Amino acid sequence: MSELRHDPTTREWVIIAPERASRPQQEPKTQHAEELPDWDASCPFCLGNESQTPAEVFRIPASSEDSTWDVRVVPNRFPALTPEEDMTRREEGRFTRKIGGFGEHEVIIESPSHNTSMALMTYQQVEKVLTTYQQRYNTLKANPQLRFITIFKNYGWASGTSLIHPHSQLVATPIITPYYHRRFDVAHDYHADMGECLYCELLAEELEKKERIVAETEEFVVFHPYASRMPYETWIIPKEHSASFGLFPNSRFPELATVLKDILFCLYVKLDNPAFNLIIDTSTTVDEDDPYYHWHIRITPRLTTIAGFEIGSGIYISQALPEDTAKFMRECCYSLVKEGDIYLMPPV
Amino acid sequence: MSELRHDPTTREWVIIAPERASRPQQEPKTQHAEELPDWDASCPFCLGNESQTPAEVFRIPASSEDSTWDVRVVPNRFPALTPEEDMTRREEGRFTRKIGGFGEHEVIIESPSHNTSMALMTYQQVEKVLTTYQQRYNTLKANPQLRFITIFKNYGWASGTSLIHPHSQLVATPIITPYYHRRFDVAHDYHADMGECLYCELLAEELEKKERIVAETEEFVVFHPYASRMPYETWIIPKEHSASFGLFPNSRFPELATVLKDILFCLYVKLDNPAFNLIIDTSTTVDEDDPYYHWHIRITPRLTTIAGFEIGSGIYISQALPEDTAKFMRECCYSLVKEGDIYLMPPV
Repeated sequence: MSELRHDPTTREWVIIAPERASRPQQEPKTQHAEELPDWDASCPFCLGNESQTPAEVFRIPASSEDSTWDVRVVPNRFPALTPEEDMTRREEGRFTRKIGGFGEHEVIIESPSHNTSMALMTYQQVEKVLTTYQQRYNTLKANPQLRFITIFKNYGWASGTSLIHPHSQLVATPIITPYYHRRFDVAHDYHADMGECLYCELLAEELEKKERIVAETEEFVVFHPYASRMPYETWIIPKEHSASFGLFPNSRFPELATVLKDILFCLYVKLDNPAFNLIIDTSTTVDEDDPYYHWHIRITPRLTTIAGFEIGSGIYISQALPEDTAKFMRECCYSLVKEGDIYLMPPV
Repeated sequence: MSELRHDPTTREWVIIAPERASRPQQEPKTQHAEELPDWDASCPFCLGNESQTPAEVFRIPASSEDSTWDVRVVPNRFPALTPEEDMTRREEGRFTRKIGGFGEHEVIIESPSHNTSMALMTYQQVEKVLTTYQQRYNTLKANPQLRFITIFKNYGWASGTSLIHPHSQLVATPIITPYYHRRFDVAHDYHADMGECLYCELLAEELEKKERIVAETEEFVVFHPYASRMPYETWIIPKEHSASFGLFPNSRFPELATVLKDILFCLYVKLDNPAFNLIIDTSTTVDEDDPYYHWHIRITPRLTTIAGFEIGSGIYISQALPEDTAKFMRECCYSLVKEGDIYLMPPV
């Protein structure tokens, strides 16, 4: 019994086909942090190897004597985009429009320790990473040539990461992508028609229905979207309307850090250390105050491979109902809360 | 030196960043056919194991006494969509629109042999597979409820395949995906503005510039698109305008089979058996005669992993310039033609 489900935020359709989960398939495992050394001489992100990275652009100084820093931000050594490139549009022919690779590509080194991950760090450390995200976001948005800033994380082999040491990335581009154009257009049209934020209303419906909610705190809701593109796709969304992550108030970072770490810890324990991608989904840098968009965090575990049908047609086939995965995650949260392993995720 | 390149067929931007190819990364290898047995007792697609699949819907009878069939088509045992489902649109809430999983999901078993691939088959066998694609396409398009038919192939571990035995798949859906809506809209707008097919004009420009052409035959052009989403993305496009693969004339299948097999053989030899996805990109089933779309085959080798930035932002980062990869492939073709291993790919 499969279904085609419509994503109200993108107007894309997703096929949800739970029977396909029985297909034979094996995915490579990501090494558990405890199997790794806490320091690796050849790792450019490890403590003491700071000279192996390009010059630092930001640091949170160390809170203990074990290190000289807690979080560092450096330009990516293999950048997709750089500030030195020219951003003029050029046409070499009628069908060959290009822009120089202008932009920023940074790496946020989340910890001096080689063998940790966001799921295993202290809440304080996760908070430092999140405030670093925002600090870099707000620094770069001051440049009006950077139209869009994507902060993301690849964790584990199947996520596309090339380095084990805990890190995230930031890419700032001179263009808004069609994927986001579509998200913004859909939200904008909804607001024009209904006078409300699509995401605020969607959230209200999810909270009323409850079946896809994983957890709810004072400020946040964690849920699995109705038309999830992949099993266990997880959104962390603030209850209060705000288009931009850049405007998220400082006072609320401790709660966000707790929610994020607890959710990643649940996934780590209950799905046995899955690879995942995380993205901060936010407005453009010039529309931070708009009434129609609503920033949130999207986590997509990489339990299956993106195959020819997805690449070719743009339709994702997911092998799990979000109602089932949300129920499973609720129960995980409940058991981990009871055992004292997490503490801010009361089941609904 | 990276670039942002604009895809005139989708209006998407792609980042081409060749320096990132130096990043450390390892991909799992796909087993070479010669390392595999020619028959596997547990493989549902092997000769003699026909009872392990759902009942056959099409077959090309054997041309030799070694087998009872040359190509078989069966419903997928783990279907994403099935014809039994109801296709009524339903709304369980304001943001939860769905359609039952109505559609077709078939498997084209390309050969009775377990240890071959399209790159290694005879030209005659590849032609049989391609005519089977078209036969199934044209049979299913008679059902007006099936709006769009995607024929695709996942080859090798990193492509998302779950079975080794050479096979392709067909998925027919009651909806057109936003990705194709976009492709059709862009082509439609171009035709409205210019009175010509976007793809015909693009092809003329590529043939004039030559730098991204891999090969040219009487009826086909093989090239690497200007804004390739992945390194070695390859298009095989008929010179003559036609919106639909369903209308491709029978008399031209031998040439198409030769071009396809030769290109896959070049990739197999020169990139050491890469995983890839292949897709038949075609019009909707009701617009087969339209003047604005132009069917083609897209091959996307899976040399790198689709990561968080691609999933989150919709922008692909490719690590190779299509001018460089096309030149490399031209030289491959040339050497293989000279050695007599391929024969219908004269370098331009």
